[in-house]
Amino acid sequence: MTDHQLCPKFEAAFEILGKRWTGLIIKSLLPGPRRFKDISEMIPGMSDRMLAERFKELEACGLIHRHVYPETPVRIEYELTEKGKALEPVMKEVQNWGESWVN
Amino acid sequence: MTDHQLCPKFEAAFEILGKRWTGLIIKSLLPGPRRFKDISEMIPGMSDRMLAERFKELEACGLIHRHVYPETPVRIEYELTEKGKALEPVMKEVQNWGESWVN
Repeated sequence: MTDHQLCPKFEAAFEILGKRWTGLIIKSLLPGPRRFKDISEMIPGMSDRMLAERFKELEACGLIHRHVYPETPVRIEYELTEKGKALEPVMKEVQNWGESWVN
Repeated sequence: MTDHQLCPKFEAAFEILGKRWTGLIIKSLLPGPRRFKDISEMIPGMSDRMLAERFKELEACGLIHRHVYPETPVRIEYELTEKGKALEPVMKEVQNWGESWVN
């Protein structure tokens, strides 16, 4: 990369992270699989419609898996893939920055 | 933080980073002060109007300084503050992730 260009892989990464709520959703899934309602409750400012849209995008990017358990009633869980879990160091640095610089 | 809440400082950090173009603008300013046109050229998909808006937001958040040099013609440069430069580890981890996981 020259000084006048950004790395396309960096740009692609921010195509995902630079969308409202995405970082919070990924962070919420780091501890393990969660149901729709769990994530919805962890991020009160986000509508369920938005969460459904983001889940679809994150699934399409290969960051999360959607597991459907054929129970009654059916149980659906969302889990980070390896690619999604690999964002943990990013989330950690965002947390560090927030702790140092957000008052 | 319980398992059912996100840290407000993490959320605040992503209020900034989770906006389209913001991460790319910060990354573009890491090497040092730049003019409007330099950043505009580094991020070809972004309109100048959008860049002007993001610069204003980033200044309001205390992430960048706008320097006006009273030359003829006037020279205006944008520079990361300490708070802005402190995002370098985040950008580095995003780059690492992109290199490993974006094909």
